[in-house]
Amino acid sequence: MNEAQEPIFDVAHLGHVELLSPKPEESLWYFRDVLGMQEVARQGQSVYLRAWGEYERYSLKLTESKQAGVAHTAFRAMSPRALERRVHALEASGQGRGWIDGDIGHGKAYQFTDPDGHLLELYYESEKYRAPETLRPALKNQPQRYPDRGVGVRRLDHINFLGLDPAPNRVFFQECLGARSTERIVLDNGTESGTWLTFTNKAYDVVYTKDATGHAGRLHHIAYWVDNREDVLRAADIYLENGVSIEFAPGKHAIAQGFFLYVHEPGGNRIEVASGGYLIFDPDWEPIVWSQAERAKGQAWGQPTVESFHTYGTPVV
Amino acid sequence: MNEAQEPIFDVAHLGHVELLSPKPEESLWYFRDVLGMQEVARQGQSVYLRAWGEYERYSLKLTESKQAGVAHTAFRAMSPRALERRVHALEASGQGRGWIDGDIGHGKAYQFTDPDGHLLELYYESEKYRAPETLRPALKNQPQRYPDRGVGVRRLDHINFLGLDPAPNRVFFQECLGARSTERIVLDNGTESGTWLTFTNKAYDVVYTKDATGHAGRLHHIAYWVDNREDVLRAADIYLENGVSIEFAPGKHAIAQGFFLYVHEPGGNRIEVASGGYLIFDPDWEPIVWSQAERAKGQAWGQPTVESFHTYGTPVV
Amino acid sequence: MNEAQEPIFDVAHLGHVELLSPKPEESLWYFRDVLGMQEVARQGQSVYLRAWGEYERYSLKLTESKQAGVAHTAFRAMSPRALERRVHALEASGQGRGWIDGDIGHGKAYQFTDPDGHLLELYYESEKYRAPETLRPALKNQPQRYPDRGVGVRRLDHINFLGLDPAPNRVFFQECLGARSTERIVLDNGTESGTWLTFTNKAYDVVYTKDATGHAGRLHHIAYWVDNREDVLRAADIYLENGVSIEFAPGKHAIAQGFFLYVHEPGGNRIEVASGGYLIFDPDWEPIVWSQAERAKGQAWGQPTVESFHTYGTPVV
Amino acid sequence: MNEAQEPIFDVAHLGHVELLSPKPEESLWYFRDVLGMQEVARQGQSVYLRAWGEYERYSLKLTESKQAGVAHTAFRAMSPRALERRVHALEASGQGRGWIDGDIGHGKAYQFTDPDGHLLELYYESEKYRAPETLRPALKNQPQRYPDRGVGVRRLDHINFLGLDPAPNRVFFQECLGARSTERIVLDNGTESGTWLTFTNKAYDVVYTKDATGHAGRLHHIAYWVDNREDVLRAADIYLENGVSIEFAPGKHAIAQGFFLYVHEPGGNRIEVASGGYLIFDPDWEPIVWSQAERAKGQAWGQPTVESFHTYGTPVV
Repeated sequence: MNEAQEPIFDVAHLGHVELLSPKPEESLWYFRDVLGMQEVARQGQSVYLRAWGEYERYSLKLTESKQAGVAHTAFRAMSPRALERRVHALEASGQGRGWIDGDIGHGKAYQFTDPDGHLLELYYESEKYRAPETLRPALKNQPQRYPDRGVGVRRLDHINFLGLDPAPNRVFFQECLGARSTERIVLDNGTESGTWLTFTNKAYDVVYTKDATGHAGRLHHIAYWVDNREDVLRAADIYLENGVSIEFAPGKHAIAQGFFLYVHEPGGNRIEVASGGYLIFDPDWEPIVWSQAERAKGQAWGQPTVESFHTYGTPVV
Repeated sequence: MNEAQEPIFDVAHLGHVELLSPKPEESLWYFRDVLGMQEVARQGQSVYLRAWGEYERYSLKLTESKQAGVAHTAFRAMSPRALERRVHALEASGQGRGWIDGDIGHGKAYQFTDPDGHLLELYYESEKYRAPETLRPALKNQPQRYPDRGVGVRRLDHINFLGLDPAPNRVFFQECLGARSTERIVLDNGTESGTWLTFTNKAYDVVYTKDATGHAGRLHHIAYWVDNREDVLRAADIYLENGVSIEFAPGKHAIAQGFFLYVHEPGGNRIEVASGGYLIFDPDWEPIVWSQAERAKGQAWGQPTVESFHTYGTPVV
Repeated sequence: MNEAQEPIFDVAHLGHVELLSPKPEESLWYFRDVLGMQEVARQGQSVYLRAWGEYERYSLKLTESKQAGVAHTAFRAMSPRALERRVHALEASGQGRGWIDGDIGHGKAYQFTDPDGHLLELYYESEKYRAPETLRPALKNQPQRYPDRGVGVRRLDHINFLGLDPAPNRVFFQECLGARSTERIVLDNGTESGTWLTFTNKAYDVVYTKDATGHAGRLHHIAYWVDNREDVLRAADIYLENGVSIEFAPGKHAIAQGFFLYVHEPGGNRIEVASGGYLIFDPDWEPIVWSQAERAKGQAWGQPTVESFHTYGTPVV
Repeated sequence: MNEAQEPIFDVAHLGHVELLSPKPEESLWYFRDVLGMQEVARQGQSVYLRAWGEYERYSLKLTESKQAGVAHTAFRAMSPRALERRVHALEASGQGRGWIDGDIGHGKAYQFTDPDGHLLELYYESEKYRAPETLRPALKNQPQRYPDRGVGVRRLDHINFLGLDPAPNRVFFQECLGARSTERIVLDNGTESGTWLTFTNKAYDVVYTKDATGHAGRLHHIAYWVDNREDVLRAADIYLENGVSIEFAPGKHAIAQGFFLYVHEPGGNRIEVASGGYLIFDPDWEPIVWSQAERAKGQAWGQPTVESFHTYGTPVV
C-alpha cells in the first residue's frame, strides 16, 4: 500500500449552509420558533442561526432572496495545513474560485464549486460559541442550554444536493476533499442516481440525488438532527399544530437507515428532522450499492417514496 | 350476588386540586413556563391553570398562602343522580360538610373530609374548555393545541395524600365514593403503609401513604401525565436547565409500575411527571398486597427510594 | 335527568377474538414468535394464545379454517347481574341467539349477532391466568413475565369490523350493550362511514368501518397494544426482518390519535400493533364527528391512507 | 503549526475485548440470551460473540478463568502503514511487548501494555462478518439481522479501565496511539481521577477511572450500545425478569451525557448498556475539566453515584 492509498482526514465536518428565502420573516419564524434555533447575528439581508448542540457560532445563514435555494455550503478543515492541502488539490482540479476574507464566525475561506455548480467553501479558523448568561447550559460539556420550546434540534446533520449527474460530484468529493463513499444507487442503465458521502463516522454528511427536472445547482434538503426518534414524532405534532406543510411523514429510510421527517419551510426549502441511522467505524468500508429493483421497494418499512422527492427542489422550477 | 355487591360508578374522575404556595409567582412560573400549562383565569389570590389534554377548564387552582400544601381536591360525579347518591352516602358517613355554590369552571359542589382531614369536593356541573383561536388544536379530537414549550404535560393524573393511617381513608373512599382498591403495602405489624385507589381504568387516581412525621392532612404529591417515557426524560433535562430541584430522578415504580420523576416546585410542593404503568379492565381485580420485605427492595429496577419520600410533604413540618 | 339517561356500565371490556386462518401453522408462528404471544391451550383445530399483560387466560383463539376472518368476538360483563341485564336487552332486540356452555377459560356465554351479522358473545365467569414457574414475572402486579422475544405485545386492544352500514351497528352497541360513541365519520351524503365505540376509558374498543366491497360480516383488523411508540417502530423492524408484509408503515391516526402499524398475518388477517391515543374521562363526552373533507386529509401527519384499507378485509372477497 | 501538531488518525476504533469469567456458562447465557448477542466461534476455553451491528466478526472473546476481569483489549489500526507507525511509537515508548500471529477473526497483532499494566493489542487485518442464511438482514447495509430476542445490543461501545493513576494512561493513549482527550475529572489536590479518550467522533472509546482499592490492571466495565433510550429502559425490564443484578438503574451521566444502565454479569464483570451522549466534530476540542465540587453533584439529574462504582471492579479484590 502506498501513501496515496491512505485515507485523507483533512475535512472535519459540514460547517454551515446559506439558505435563500423569498419569505425571510416566515422562514425565520420556522427556524427560530418551530425548530427552536437561536438567532446569533444579523448582517445585510442575512440572519445567522444556531442549534443548541453546535460548538461553532452558527450553522445556518438565512438570506433574503427572490428565490429559495442554497447560496453556499461551507466545510471546516481539520487544521491549517489540511486546509492548505485541500486548496492545492482544489486549485489543481480546476474547480477552485479563490479566497474570501471570511464571514461572521469564521476566518478566510476558499471558494470552489462542485461539478454541478453548487458553491462550496472550506475554512479552518472558526469562532467557538460562548453562550450568554441566559443561554448558559447546566452541564459544562454542552455549548448552549437545551431550548424548551419548539422541536429543539441539536445540530446541522447533512446536506442533500440535487445534481444532473451525482457520480462526478461524488468523485470530486472523494478526490479533492477526501470524502468517503458510503452508499449509492445504481440504476439498471448504469446511472448513479443517488450517492452518499461522509467526512466523519456518520453514515453521511453530503448526498447527491439526481435532479429529474434537468436543472443544475439545486437543493434537495438540509437536515437537522435530534437525538431520539421520539423527538422526530414530537416534531411532526409541532409541525401539525403550526401549520407547517409536512411532505413526508416520519419513517425509516432503507439507505443509511435514518429516521426522517420532511417539510417545506415557508420559504420553500425542504428541511428534514433526522435521527437514528448508523455510524461507520470500518476504515475499509465498501460502498453499499442499491440496484434499481432494490430501490423500487421504497423506504425500509415499505412506505412508498413521495413523488415530489424526485422533482421538487429549490429554486423551484 | 346482591345489588350492593355490584360495583359503583358514581365518581368519574379526579377533577382538580387547589395547591397552596408561599411563592405564588415562582410557582406560577413553574407550572406555566416549565411544565407548559396554560393560565385560564385569576380570582382573588388564585390563578387557574390547565394542561392541554384536559376537557374541563382547569385542573389546578394555585393559591397564595403562608404555607405550601393542598387546600382542596375535587372529583367529578358521573351524573346528577350519581352526585345525589354520593352526597347521601357522605352525609350518612358523618364526613359531610355541606354544599358550596361552585367555583370558576364548575357548579355547586359538596364538601367533605377524608378521615385524615383533607378537604374534598364532589361536583357534577362542569364547564367544558373551549380553546381560544390562538390555542385551537389542529385535530378536532383534542381540547387544546399541544404547547411547544416546556414539558408539555397532558393532564392531571393523580394525587398522593400523606395520612396518619392510610387504611381508614381507603375504606372511606371505597364505601362512600365507590373507589376500587388496586394495590397496597401491608407491613409485618399489619399497618397499611400505602394504598392505591381508582375510579377509572387507570391503576390509581388517589394514593394515601403513611406520614412518618405524625402529622395529618398533608400532601405527598400531585402528578401530571405525559404520554411517553421519553417525555419524562426530556422533562428531567428541562428541570436541569431551569434549576428546578429534582428530588427523585426518572425511574420505574414497582407498585403500579409508573415511570416517574419528582421535583419540588418553587413553593415547596412535590410534583411528579408520570407516564407508563398499566390499565385495569378486570371488574374482579383483587388488590395486590406488597409485604414489608417486598417493599424493601426499592423501586422496580432496584433504585432505592429517596429518604425524603417518607417524611417530606407539604405543609413542611 | 331520568334513570334511563344514566350511563350503563355492564360490559367491562373486549375479552377475546376467534380468528380463522387457512395457514394455521404460519399464523401461529406470527402470533407466537413474531408478536411474542404465549400459547396456553389447544383444542380441536384451535390454538389459544395470550399477551403478557392480560389477566384472563387468553385473548386469541386461532382456528384453522378454509378462509381467514373472525369467527366470534367475546366481551366480558361487569358482574353476573350485568350479564343478566344485557341478555334481557339482547333478547328484546331480536339479535339474541342463546347460551353456550362456555369455552376454555370462561363459563357460559350468551351468543348474539350485530346487525351486520358478526357473531358476538357475552360472558362473565372467567379464569384468571396463573403463570407457570417459567413465566412468572418479577413484579407481582403483572400477570406474566415480559417476553424478551418478538414484539412483546401487552394486550388485545380493539377490534375493527367491516360493515355494510356502520350506523345501525353503533346504535345496537349503544342501546343493547351500553357502549359509548366516541368518534365517527359522516360523509356529505349523510353516510356514517366509520364509527368508534368504547366500554372503558380507552377512546375505543370496537370500530365499524364501511365495507366498500358490499359484503357483510367481515373483519378489518384486530389490534394488540404496546406501551410505547418506540415499541411500534421496533415492531416494524422485526416485521421487516421476518418478512411479514407491512401494509401501512407506522404513523399517527387523526381519528383517536393512535400510533399504528398494520400488517397481514400469514393467514391473511390484518393485524395492528397500536400505542398512544388518549383516554376519555368525561362522562358527557360528545362524539367527535369528522366530515368528508376533514377525512380526506389523511392521517394526522398527512400520510395518505393506503387504498387497500377501504377494500381489503377477511374473508378476502 | 508544524507537522507534529496535526492530529493522528492511525487508530480506527476499539475492536474487541477478552473478558474472563469464572462462570463461563452463566456468562455465555447473559451475553447470548439476555443481551441478544450471537456466538460465532469457540476455541479452547473461549467463546467468541458478536453484536448485530458490528462489521467485524466479533467484539467479545469470553474466556473461562479463575477470576473475572479483562484479559486483553484490541484496537484496529486505520491502515497497514498506520499500524507500522503506531508500532514504532509503542516500541519507542518501552510499553511494547511484540507481535502475535493473530486470533480468530484478525491477523497479526502487536501487543503492549498501558502504564497501569492492562494488556492491549493493535491489529489491522480483520475478517469482515458475513451472515449465514438464517441471520441475513433485510437491509443490505446492515451486517446481521436484528435479533428479536433479549436486549438486542448493536455494538461494543467503550471500555472503562480502573487504574492506579489515570493521568499517565491518558498521556500514553494520546502520545503513542493518537487518542484525543475529551473530558476529565481533576480533584482539588490535582489528581486526575477519571479521564475520557476517543479515536472517533464518539465522545469516548476508552475511559480510565481511579481504582480506590489501590490495585492495578482491573476493569471497571465494558459497554454495549443500543440506539434508543427506550432500549435501555427495556433492557432494565429484561434484566429484572431474568434476575440479572442491576447495580445502577438507568440514568444520565453528567460526564459525556450518556444514558446508562449497569449490571454485573454472572461472572462478575460490570456491563453497561449505553445510549445517547454526543458526537464531537471539533478538531480543536478542548477537554472538559470537571472539578471535585462539580463531580460531587452526582449524575446529570442529581442521581447519586452508587458507592460500589469507586471500589468494585474485576478481578474482585
